[in-house]
Amino acid sequence: MNITAQQALDAIAAAQQAATNIKVPMNIAVVDRGSNLVAFVKMDGAWLGSKDIAIKKAQTSNYFDMNSGEIGKLSQPGKPLYQIEVSNGGLISFPGGVLIKNDEEIIGAIGVSGGGVEQDEEVAKAGAATIK
Amino acid sequence: MNITAQQALDAIAAAQQAATNIKVPMNIAVVDRGSNLVAFVKMDGAWLGSKDIAIKKAQTSNYFDMNSGEIGKLSQPGKPLYQIEVSNGGLISFPGGVLIKNDEEIIGAIGVSGGGVEQDEEVAKAGAATIK
Amino acid sequence: MNITAQQALDAIAAAQQAATNIKVPMNIAVVDRGSNLVAFVKMDGAWLGSKDIAIKKAQTSNYFDMNSGEIGKLSQPGKPLYQIEVSNGGLISFPGGVLIKNDEEIIGAIGVSGGGVEQDEEVAKAGAATIK
Amino acid sequence: MNITAQQALDAIAAAQQAATNIKVPMNIAVVDRGSNLVAFVKMDGAWLGSKDIAIKKAQTSNYFDMNSGEIGKLSQPGKPLYQIEVSNGGLISFPGGVLIKNDEEIIGAIGVSGGGVEQDEEVAKAGAATIK
Repeated sequence: MNITAQQALDAIAAAQQAATNIKVPMNIAVVDRGSNLVAFVKMDGAWLGSKDIAIKKAQTSNYFDMNSGEIGKLSQPGKPLYQIEVSNGGLISFPGGVLIKNDEEIIGAIGVSGGGVEQDEEVAKAGAATIK
Repeated sequence: MNITAQQALDAIAAAQQAATNIKVPMNIAVVDRGSNLVAFVKMDGAWLGSKDIAIKKAQTSNYFDMNSGEIGKLSQPGKPLYQIEVSNGGLISFPGGVLIKNDEEIIGAIGVSGGGVEQDEEVAKAGAATIK
Repeated sequence: MNITAQQALDAIAAAQQAATNIKVPMNIAVVDRGSNLVAFVKMDGAWLGSKDIAIKKAQTSNYFDMNSGEIGKLSQPGKPLYQIEVSNGGLISFPGGVLIKNDEEIIGAIGVSGGGVEQDEEVAKAGAATIK
Repeated sequence: MNITAQQALDAIAAAQQAATNIKVPMNIAVVDRGSNLVAFVKMDGAWLGSKDIAIKKAQTSNYFDMNSGEIGKLSQPGKPLYQIEVSNGGLISFPGGVLIKNDEEIIGAIGVSGGGVEQDEEVAKAGAATIK
């Protein structure tokens, strides 16, 4: 099952609210199960370079059925997935990409970039949590 | 001056309404004066390949300060801008990309793809018209 | 719904047989509804450059819910979709890409390249016809 | 000498069986001596992002006439091939890419991705072992 446009816009609105609450403008992207973009917004004042990162975080999460930060633990020097980031046209393997589930089924992912990685992750989770 | 996130989302909402009115699901993108994506939505059932086209229509319009279809008149075989489409990572030179203005100043552009080119143009204009 | 691996391999086997029957080695690709590759084979002696074309034909068909050759009718000079081929990382708009349906639902597409375009189309249709 | 289409499909079928035995859906790719794709399958439920990794593992092995994991030992920080992964459009230097030989002659390579790297390597070896 794939996320709908309305679900994607709802997740973005919730993430936008969470970003506003902590006063950090963010880029927020939602992809479907094909890792194709469904919805996106760049908040006023958010870093320009964070657009691509937000999209890649969402795609990375959906590509491997896990939050983006999990990949980063395995891709450090000496770890099993070292340098996996050069695949798929570029992965982002630090936190801020979070799976979106409907019941237990993965239906897409959200990626957030613009603050510290903990802030990005917090905002992404707020977005993902709106979908039940 | 650049379009704001709120203006971009308003333009997308208006375009989405216009697309719903004619019963054609669309991909809708808004870019700022840097031709960078500000907001995007892929309506349920819209062609997957139209995402990239919607974004490129918006970028093409903003790149040259004219609606995308104007470029296409000049890029036909034997015309002055023949093959300009291969520049800038790919231009789309048929209708559906429309400038967004605030008073008389260009602040960005909207690109729409998913129906016939006249439908795309009509929906893009509906989106652009929400910004005064 | 998405095509399964077994359906994709069955379609490729049928297309391979059809290509063998007309004695033209082919590249044959099957993509799912996300336009992502599910299965591929390059027959011995098939043109090396046809691999990318076969994949792009399958993707092009799935991107726009129509056989690839339909796009080409609309993308000629002076036609509504002139130069659409520069989008989506490159489209192939001549025949040889055919939708795969299950009952009436599109579940993916097959792309074939290696012979004349009528041969490519014939072989692609033979592959697609195996899925009911 | 180059691997044939039939050998590639046989290697993929054997790898698919090995993946089924350990209950991990995999992406499996075979390339020839030109590092060009000969055959590919994405098993149902395999990670979407593993397609590109499987292909790159096969290519990486064939590019340097050694299994992909050998490269990774030399590309760690401070080692002779540090950052070699950015070459050739992206290398994957962890295990799962295995040379395919006919007698002692290299005729191509197989790349597998979808499980832990030891699982990927095991499945790739099962595929390569079918070719004598």
